[in-house]
Amino acid sequence: MSVIPVKTPSATYDVTIASGLLRTLRPRLEKLNQGKPFVPFVVTSPEIWGLWSEQFLASFKEPPAVLFLPAGERYKRMASVEDLAQQLAEAGADRDSLLIAFGGGVIGDLTGFLAAIYMRGIRYVQVPTTLLAQVDSSIGGKTGANLAAGKNLIGSFHHPQAVLADTDVLGTLPATELRAGLQESIKAGIIRDAKLFSYMEKNASAILAAEPKAITHVVAASVRVKADVVSKDEKESGLRMILNFGHTIGHAIEAATNYKQLLHGEAVGWGSIAALNVAVGRKTVTPAQAERMTNLILRYGPLSPFKATAQKLVDLTARDKKNRSGVRSFILPKGIGATQIVRDVTEAELLAATEKMLTLMRQSTR
Amino acid sequence: MSVIPVKTPSATYDVTIASGLLRTLRPRLEKLNQGKPFVPFVVTSPEIWGLWSEQFLASFKEPPAVLFLPAGERYKRMASVEDLAQQLAEAGADRDSLLIAFGGGVIGDLTGFLAAIYMRGIRYVQVPTTLLAQVDSSIGGKTGANLAAGKNLIGSFHHPQAVLADTDVLGTLPATELRAGLQESIKAGIIRDAKLFSYMEKNASAILAAEPKAITHVVAASVRVKADVVSKDEKESGLRMILNFGHTIGHAIEAATNYKQLLHGEAVGWGSIAALNVAVGRKTVTPAQAERMTNLILRYGPLSPFKATAQKLVDLTARDKKNRSGVRSFILPKGIGATQIVRDVTEAELLAATEKMLTLMRQSTR
Repeated sequence: MSVIPVKTPSATYDVTIASGLLRTLRPRLEKLNQGKPFVPFVVTSPEIWGLWSEQFLASFKEPPAVLFLPAGERYKRMASVEDLAQQLAEAGADRDSLLIAFGGGVIGDLTGFLAAIYMRGIRYVQVPTTLLAQVDSSIGGKTGANLAAGKNLIGSFHHPQAVLADTDVLGTLPATELRAGLQESIKAGIIRDAKLFSYMEKNASAILAAEPKAITHVVAASVRVKADVVSKDEKESGLRMILNFGHTIGHAIEAATNYKQLLHGEAVGWGSIAALNVAVGRKTVTPAQAERMTNLILRYGPLSPFKATAQKLVDLTARDKKNRSGVRSFILPKGIGATQIVRDVTEAELLAATEKMLTLMRQSTR
Repeated sequence: MSVIPVKTPSATYDVTIASGLLRTLRPRLEKLNQGKPFVPFVVTSPEIWGLWSEQFLASFKEPPAVLFLPAGERYKRMASVEDLAQQLAEAGADRDSLLIAFGGGVIGDLTGFLAAIYMRGIRYVQVPTTLLAQVDSSIGGKTGANLAAGKNLIGSFHHPQAVLADTDVLGTLPATELRAGLQESIKAGIIRDAKLFSYMEKNASAILAAEPKAITHVVAASVRVKADVVSKDEKESGLRMILNFGHTIGHAIEAATNYKQLLHGEAVGWGSIAALNVAVGRKTVTPAQAERMTNLILRYGPLSPFKATAQKLVDLTARDKKNRSGVRSFILPKGIGATQIVRDVTEAELLAATEKMLTLMRQSTR
C-alpha cells in the first residue's frame, strides 16, 4: 500500500493506492469523518457499477443511494450537474451528504464539481477506476464541466477528503484506456521524474500487461509527481502549469475532433510529441533526448490517428484557458525529468512543431 | 458616502454607498486592481441597462462588453449560467476578465456564481440596483442558482472585489420592490440593530418616499448589520444563520407560490410574522414587542397575499437547505435587536404560528 499526502493551503488529504481498497470503503469514510455525521451518495456509471458494485458494497451495512451518469465526455456538461443535483435534492441530500465519485475522469471531475456547488459545498471522496483518473484527474481538487466552447471552462477548486485508488479495478479497464492513461505517467516522468521515465522504458511489457507490481509502481510514482506539484502550487499560479506539458496541442486535438475520436491521454501523447519538437528547436532538449521521449510515447501506443491541419490546431490553442490576456504559456522539458515555462513561443514555431508531429503520425500509422 | 468593510478569512472588501457612484466606476475598478490587467464584462438586464447605461458608461473610454440576462427569478437557473459562460468564452474572456453584476439580486447571485466557476474563478464586482440587493444579497459572497427542487440549492461562496451601491438607482425602482427590499432592513433591525428598527418606525413616510437622506441611512445601517455578521461567520457555521430570520417560512411561501407571486422581501415579511408568533409562544419576545415588530412589517406593506395552507408551508420547510441531518434550526428574536438560534421547534409549534400568520393575512388584506 502507498499513502501519498497532498498538502495545500486549503486542504490536506491522502491518496491511498492498494489492491482490495474497495472492500474497506465504509470504515475509511468513518475514519475520515471522525464522528461527524455523513450520508453517502455514490455517483457512478452503469458499467462500473455492474462490474464492481459487489466489492464496493461489501463494507456497507446499509447500501448507499446510487446516482448514475452515463460514461463519456459528452455527459460532462452543466445539464448533467443540474440533473444530479436535482436527484440529490429529491433524495433529501443536505449539507451532511458525502458524495463518492466512483468512476473515471468524467465522473470524478463532475462529481467533484457537484460537491463544490451543491448547497455551496459538501464533502466528497474520489474512488477512481481508470488509470488516468488514478494518476492524474482525481488528485488536486480541480473539478469541472465542459462548455460547447471548450473543455473544463466551468469548474471549481474543491479537494476531496481522500483519494482511494484500488488497483484491482484496472483489471477490467479496456487496454486502450490503460495505454492512454499511461501517457500521463510518461508526462509525469518527463517533467519531474527521470527514474519513473526509465522504469517505464525498461518495464513496458509488464506495465502494458497491467502486472500488479509494475502497474502499482507506476501509479504510485505518477501520483507522487502530481501530489508534489499540487502541494507546492494549489491554484496553478506557477509550478502547477508544468502538468500541462503536452496539453496545449493536446487540448486543440481534442477540440478539433469534438472530444470523440481520441482518448484524453492519446491527445496528450500527440501534444507531447509536438511540444518536444518545440523543445528541440529551443535546444532545451537534445535531438537524442527528444527521440527517446517520443519513442516512449509511441511505445505505449498505438495512439489513434486523427485528421486536422497544423494551422487548425494552432488556431484552437488560442482559446486555451491557460492564456492570460492573450499571452501563451508553454511548458518545455529541460532534458528528461525537468521543465521550464516559456511565454514567447511564436505561432510559427508552434506551427512547425505541430506539422512535424503530424508527419510522424502519418508515418507511424501508415 | 458610507464605506463599510467586510472582513472574512477568505476576502476583505468594502461596500460603498453613495449617490453618483455609477459615474466613477472605471477609476474604482482600476484602484481595486492596482496595475493587474482586467477586462470588464457587464452582466445586466435590458431594463436596467436601458435606464442607467449612460451613467454606467460615463467613466469608460472603451465601453465594456455587455451580456444580458432577462429580469426575473425564473432565469436564475443553471441554463442561464451556462449560456452566459458560453457567451464569455465566445468573446474570448480569460482569467483576466472581471465581471460586473449590474442589477438586482438575481443578476448579482447569478453573476457571482458565474464568476465563481468560469475558468474555476475570476474576479467580479457587485453594482446592485435594487434595495434588496444593496442591503442584503450583494454582500457576503453567497452566490448561486435555483434548482427545480428549490431556491439557491446550487452555488458557491465567492466574494466580490467590492460592492458599489449607488442610491440614485433606487429612484427608478418600482415602489413595490422598494417596499419589499425594506423588509430585509426591518429584519436587520429586529435581529441586531434596535436603533435601525426605531429609525424605521419614526421615518416610515420619508423612507417609503425614498427621500435620499432617509433611504441612505437605512441602506447603510442595514449593510452594517450584514457586513458585521458575515465578517464574524463567513461560511454560516453559526452566527450568520441569524440572517435567516423570517426565511424558513419565507422560503416555503416562495416555493408554494412557485417564486412567481411574491417578491422575496414580501415572503420574508410574512415569514417574519410567523417566526414572531413562535417567539411569543417561547416567550423570547413579549406580546407587545411582537406586535410592534409585526406592525412595522405591515407598515412597509402591503405585502401581497397568497394562497397556501399552513400544513403545506410547514411541509415545504422540511427541504430547507439549512437543515442538517434532519435537524431544523430556527432563528428567534430576543426582544428587539437580538436573537437566539433554537433547534427544537416542533412541527406543531410551526403549524400554529403559521396558521396565526395566515389568519392575520386574511384579516389585513380583506
